[in-house]
Amino acid sequence: MTTQLGIALLGAGRMAHVYGPKINAHPGLRLEVVYNHRIASAQRAVDLYGGRATEDLEDALKDPAVDAVVIATPTDTHVDYIETVARAGKPIYCEKPLDQTLDRVDRALTALEAHPVPFMLGFNRRFDPDNGALRTAVQNGDIGRLTMLMSWSREPAPPPIEYVRASGGYFVDATIHDIDLLCWIAGERPVEVHASGSCVFNPEIGAEGDFDLTMTTFRMPSGALVHINNSRACAYGFDQRLEAFGDDGMLQTINHRDDPLIRWDGRRTEAREPLKHFFLERYDQSFYNALDEFHRAIIEDRQPSATAQHGRDALAIALACQTSAKTRQFVCPDYGT
Amino acid sequence: MTTQLGIALLGAGRMAHVYGPKINAHPGLRLEVVYNHRIASAQRAVDLYGGRATEDLEDALKDPAVDAVVIATPTDTHVDYIETVARAGKPIYCEKPLDQTLDRVDRALTALEAHPVPFMLGFNRRFDPDNGALRTAVQNGDIGRLTMLMSWSREPAPPPIEYVRASGGYFVDATIHDIDLLCWIAGERPVEVHASGSCVFNPEIGAEGDFDLTMTTFRMPSGALVHINNSRACAYGFDQRLEAFGDDGMLQTINHRDDPLIRWDGRRTEAREPLKHFFLERYDQSFYNALDEFHRAIIEDRQPSATAQHGRDALAIALACQTSAKTRQFVCPDYGT
Amino acid sequence: MTTQLGIALLGAGRMAHVYGPKINAHPGLRLEVVYNHRIASAQRAVDLYGGRATEDLEDALKDPAVDAVVIATPTDTHVDYIETVARAGKPIYCEKPLDQTLDRVDRALTALEAHPVPFMLGFNRRFDPDNGALRTAVQNGDIGRLTMLMSWSREPAPPPIEYVRASGGYFVDATIHDIDLLCWIAGERPVEVHASGSCVFNPEIGAEGDFDLTMTTFRMPSGALVHINNSRACAYGFDQRLEAFGDDGMLQTINHRDDPLIRWDGRRTEAREPLKHFFLERYDQSFYNALDEFHRAIIEDRQPSATAQHGRDALAIALACQTSAKTRQFVCPDYGT
Amino acid sequence: MTTQLGIALLGAGRMAHVYGPKINAHPGLRLEVVYNHRIASAQRAVDLYGGRATEDLEDALKDPAVDAVVIATPTDTHVDYIETVARAGKPIYCEKPLDQTLDRVDRALTALEAHPVPFMLGFNRRFDPDNGALRTAVQNGDIGRLTMLMSWSREPAPPPIEYVRASGGYFVDATIHDIDLLCWIAGERPVEVHASGSCVFNPEIGAEGDFDLTMTTFRMPSGALVHINNSRACAYGFDQRLEAFGDDGMLQTINHRDDPLIRWDGRRTEAREPLKHFFLERYDQSFYNALDEFHRAIIEDRQPSATAQHGRDALAIALACQTSAKTRQFVCPDYGT
Repeated sequence: MTTQLGIALLGAGRMAHVYGPKINAHPGLRLEVVYNHRIASAQRAVDLYGGRATEDLEDALKDPAVDAVVIATPTDTHVDYIETVARAGKPIYCEKPLDQTLDRVDRALTALEAHPVPFMLGFNRRFDPDNGALRTAVQNGDIGRLTMLMSWSREPAPPPIEYVRASGGYFVDATIHDIDLLCWIAGERPVEVHASGSCVFNPEIGAEGDFDLTMTTFRMPSGALVHINNSRACAYGFDQRLEAFGDDGMLQTINHRDDPLIRWDGRRTEAREPLKHFFLERYDQSFYNALDEFHRAIIEDRQPSATAQHGRDALAIALACQTSAKTRQFVCPDYGT
Repeated sequence: MTTQLGIALLGAGRMAHVYGPKINAHPGLRLEVVYNHRIASAQRAVDLYGGRATEDLEDALKDPAVDAVVIATPTDTHVDYIETVARAGKPIYCEKPLDQTLDRVDRALTALEAHPVPFMLGFNRRFDPDNGALRTAVQNGDIGRLTMLMSWSREPAPPPIEYVRASGGYFVDATIHDIDLLCWIAGERPVEVHASGSCVFNPEIGAEGDFDLTMTTFRMPSGALVHINNSRACAYGFDQRLEAFGDDGMLQTINHRDDPLIRWDGRRTEAREPLKHFFLERYDQSFYNALDEFHRAIIEDRQPSATAQHGRDALAIALACQTSAKTRQFVCPDYGT
Repeated sequence: MTTQLGIALLGAGRMAHVYGPKINAHPGLRLEVVYNHRIASAQRAVDLYGGRATEDLEDALKDPAVDAVVIATPTDTHVDYIETVARAGKPIYCEKPLDQTLDRVDRALTALEAHPVPFMLGFNRRFDPDNGALRTAVQNGDIGRLTMLMSWSREPAPPPIEYVRASGGYFVDATIHDIDLLCWIAGERPVEVHASGSCVFNPEIGAEGDFDLTMTTFRMPSGALVHINNSRACAYGFDQRLEAFGDDGMLQTINHRDDPLIRWDGRRTEAREPLKHFFLERYDQSFYNALDEFHRAIIEDRQPSATAQHGRDALAIALACQTSAKTRQFVCPDYGT
Repeated sequence: MTTQLGIALLGAGRMAHVYGPKINAHPGLRLEVVYNHRIASAQRAVDLYGGRATEDLEDALKDPAVDAVVIATPTDTHVDYIETVARAGKPIYCEKPLDQTLDRVDRALTALEAHPVPFMLGFNRRFDPDNGALRTAVQNGDIGRLTMLMSWSREPAPPPIEYVRASGGYFVDATIHDIDLLCWIAGERPVEVHASGSCVFNPEIGAEGDFDLTMTTFRMPSGALVHINNSRACAYGFDQRLEAFGDDGMLQTINHRDDPLIRWDGRRTEAREPLKHFFLERYDQSFYNALDEFHRAIIEDRQPSATAQHGRDALAIALACQTSAKTRQFVCPDYGT
C-alpha cells in the first residue's frame, strides 16, 4: 500500500498547472490545498485538480491533512516561502531556481539549516530516464574516465519579453538546467567558466542586456571539459541532447518525438517528424519522477537527492557564466565557504 | 470520474498473470473474481492481484459485482467459456486465438450471434502505439496507395516442445498476430496465401510436423502484396518491425529497447543495446491499451474494435498458410460464407 | 605496370554506353573497336569513347589489337555472339542475362565448353562493395549460420512498354539480379520457389501478362528461407537493400545517396535526401569493378568468378518464379543435368 | 585532353609520402623531381613514385619540365621555400600550416606579393566532399541564417612527444584545420576567441606546456557562435563531425568507416564498425581533390581558393586560442592590417 501524502500547492501560475496534474497522477500524493494570494486563481486550480483553495498560507500550513508543500510560485518569492514553510516543519519541494541571487539563496540555506525539513529542488531533468541512463552508464565506467561532456538545449521560440525581463537572464533561467545536469553526471563542479552570448532572434532581449544564443565552457577539477549550447529558437522543436566522451568510448542521448515512424518520401528519406515541442512535452515524465523522488524521500525519512546546495552551486555557476559573457573574462564561480 | 467495471478473470496460467496486473493498473477495471478449476491456482493469483478465488464458474458469473469477463484460459477452452459467458450476458474479452479450428470458432460466432454481448479478441498488437501510428499514417494517405506491407516477428528462443505441441502450429500460434495486424492496417484480407517453413533451430519441432522459421506471402484484392517472416530464435531480442510501401513513400516502425543511449566504443559505433526480450516486455503497453479499448467499448455501449470475426479471419488465413507450407500449394483462405 | 587489354565492344545501345566510359576509366583496358551492325551507331560511340567503328564482326575479331570482347548487344543476340566470339578464341564479358530461354542458354554453354575461353557474365551487383562486404561477413560467420536472406529492389519508375515487351518479363529482366546475388551470398540454390505478382502501376504491363510488383520466396537446401521484393516504381529513388539473418545476429546494407548530410528542419528531422536515382548511379562503381574482375581473370589466366553456369542457374530460377506467379504453383527450378 | 603539369615535390618525409601517390593518381600531374637535402631520402621517394631525385633546389626549379612545386617539408622551412620558389616564378602548393609564427607568415605573404605566383595552402578538409556539401547547403540558405557552427576533431591516439614538441602546440597543429574549415563555411572570422585546454592523456604533453584536450569558442561578427572540440585520443577512431544550426534547421555531417554494414548481435544492435583510423584514411579523397584544385587553378590561370591569407588568418586564430587557454583570457586574433 502506498503511503499517501497530503500536498499544499503554493502558487497558481504556469508551473502550478504543471504540478497539479502530476500530483493527482501520483498514487502517493493527494492535493489538499492550493494557496495563492489571489483566491480566484487558487480556486481555478482547485476546480481543475481538486483540493481546497486558500489565500491564507498559515491556514494551509496548519492543516493536519497537509504533509508536505510544493512551491510553484514566482522565483523571487521562493526564499520567503521556504523560510515560512521550513519554520512550519513541513517537507518542501521547490521549483527551480531557488532564487536569482546568491544572497537570498544563502538565506534559504540558513533557514533549512535551522529547520532541517526534507527539501528538494525541482531539477526535473535529472529524473528524465534518458539522462539518468547516461549518468548511470558514465558512473558504471562504460566509457572509462569521462573527458568531455556536452549538452544542447535549444528552445522552440523566444519567450515574451516580459518573461525575459523577470527571468534573471538566459544563463540563470535556462542554462542552469544544463549546469545542474552536467555537474550531476560528471560528479564535480567547474573550477572556471567562460561563455559567449549573442542576441540574434529578438533585439528586445539584447536591449535588456540579455542573450538568446549562448555557448558555455567549463574546466573541471579532473581536467574534463564541458560544453553547453543554448538557443532561444529552434525550427525543429525542443532540441535536448547530451554527449559524454571518455577514454573508452562515447554515449549520446536521443531526442524525443511524438511520432514513432521512420518516413521516406520523394523529398526526404529515413526521416522523422519534428521533436517534442517544448519542456512540458519533453519532460512530462521527469516532472512526475521528480515528485516521486520527493515522495520516496519523505517516506524513507531521508533527504531528496536534489538539494538546496545543488541549487546554490548551479546558480553560482550560472551567474559566473553571465559575468563571463558580459565582461569577456574567465570567471571562477563563487561556491561560498 | 471513471466508471469502474468489476472483472472476473478466467484462468490462472501465464496469460492470466499478464492480465492480472494490467486490470489492477487500469482505473476503470477492478479485479473481483479469479476463476480456475483448480482453486489453489486461482488463490495464488488472488494473493497477487486481489479479488476472490472461485472454482465455480456459475458463482463468478452470478456475482452482481462482476460486470465483465476476461478469458485467459488455455486456447482449447476458449469457445466453451465464450458460450457460457455469452449465455450469462456478460461482456467478454478473450485472449487470442479464439480456437485452433474453424469449426469451433464458428460455434463461438454462433453463440455471440445468439447472445450479442460486447466481445473483444485480444489482438493486443493493434493497440501498440507504434503499430497504430503506422496504420493511421497509411490510412491518412501519407504514402499514397499501399502496395507492399511487410512484418518481421522474430522471437528470442524456441518455446518448450510441450508448448509447441499444444500451440496449433507456428502459423496459428504466432503468425496469426502478424496476419491480424497487417489485414487491419491494409483494410483488406488476402485472396490467396503461399508460405514456406523450415525447422532449423530445434529438430523436435520438425518432428511434430511444425516449423520454427517461416516466410509468408499474401496477394490482396487491391493488388498489394504482403510479406511476413517469423523465426523462433533471434540473437538480439524480440525483433518486431513493420514496413509499409506505397506510391508516395515508405513508413517503418522502430524496434524498442530498454536502454535509450547510443553507444560508441572500440568495437562498435552508433550502437544500441539489444532489443526488448520478448512480447511481455515489448507489448506491455499494448495489453493495457487493449483492456482500455474493452473498457471504453462497454462504457460507450458499442462493440470493441477487435471482433470475433477478425479472429475467425485471422485463423482462416493462418490455417491456409500452414496448409500452403505443408502441401507446397497456393491456398485460398476459407472465410466461410 | 598494368597489362593493357584491347577491347572490342559489341553493341552501341544503352549498355554499350555504360561500358564505354568504364573501359576507358580502367587502366588495364583500352577500347579498340566498337562493332555494331549499323555503322553510324558504332561511330557515335567511337566519337565519345575512342577506338574505331566497324560493322563487320569478323574484322573486329581478327584485329590483333583486340584481346577480349565485351558483349553489350540486345539480349536475344547474346548467344549468337557468344558462339562466334568463343569460336574466335577471345575472352568474353557478356552483359546479363545470357538469354531469356534455357534452350538458347544451353547453346551458349555448349559453345563455351567446346571453346573454353574466359567467360564472365555481367552480374555487376556482386561487385558492389557493400554487397561484397555482406557476403564476406556472412561467409566469415559474423552471424553464425544463415537462416533468412532478404533483398529489396525497387526501381524509380516503370520503363517504357516497349522495353517491358522485350524484357522477358519482370522476373527475368530484374529479379534475376537479386536471384544471382542471393544465391552467391548464400552459397546455395533454391530447391523450390513461389512468387506472387501484381500490376499496380501501369495497366499496359499487365496487359502484356507481366507484373510490376512482385514478392518471391525461396526454400534453400540448408533450410534457409529467402525473400525478394521488386517494384517498378519507388517515390524516393532506387531502393536497394539486403538483410541477412543468422543464428548470431543480422547484417544489413545501407542505401546510397548523393547528398551526405543529415538534415533537420521544421518538417522532417534526422532526414536524408532521396536515394540515388537508378542502377547507373547506384552501381556505377560495380560496373567498373566487374570489368576489373574480367581483366584480372584474363591476366591471371583463370575463369572469372561470375560464370555462364551462374547465368543459367539464375535464369532457371527467374523462369520458375515467373511460372509460379502465373500458375499459382510452387515450382522447382530446372537446373538441367 | 588534360593538360599535364610537371611537379617538383619538396620534402621526403611523412607528408611527401601522402602527396607522392596522389600526384601520380591525378591525370593532370606528373612527378618530375623529388627534392630533399638528403639525397637518399629523395631517392627512396623516387623509387616509390617515379621522377628523379635531387638535393639541389635550384636544379629542380630550373628544370623546364617542372611546372609547379608542392612543398611538403617540415613546417619551419615552409616560408624559406616559398620565398625561393616564388622568386623562381613557379606555382606553389604548400602543406599547412604556413608557419608557426605570424612574423614568418608575413614574410611569406610579402614574398608572394612581390612574386604573385599561384599559391595554394593545403587546407585539404575544405576539399572533402561532405564538408563541401555542408558549406554549399549553408550558403544556399538550406538552414536560413547560420547561428551556431560546431566541429569535432578527435584523433585516435596522442602522437610521439617529439612530434608534439615540434608541432607549435595543439591549437596550431590540429585545431587550425577546424578553424579554417569553420571560417570558410561561415564566411567570416571570429572577433574574439576563448578556449580551455587540459592534459589528460599523456603528462609529457602537459610538461611541454601543451594540451591534449581542448574546447574552443568563437564569437563571429554576425553574432553566430562557434564551438570546436579536439582530443588527442579517441577509442573508436578518428571522429570528424560538423553541425551547422540556423534559423530554419540544422545540418550534420556523418563519420566515415571502412565497413558499410549495419550489424546486430547479442551485444549491440544497429551498430557500425569503428571509424576510419586517422586523417590519411579519412581525408584520402580530399588530399587528391586539393591537388585537383591546384591543377585547375593553374590551368584556368587563377588563384587557388585556399590562399596564404587564409593561412595567416587561421594561424592568428589558433595562436589566439592558445593564448586564451594559457592565460585564461578572451583574446582578439591579430589579423594584421
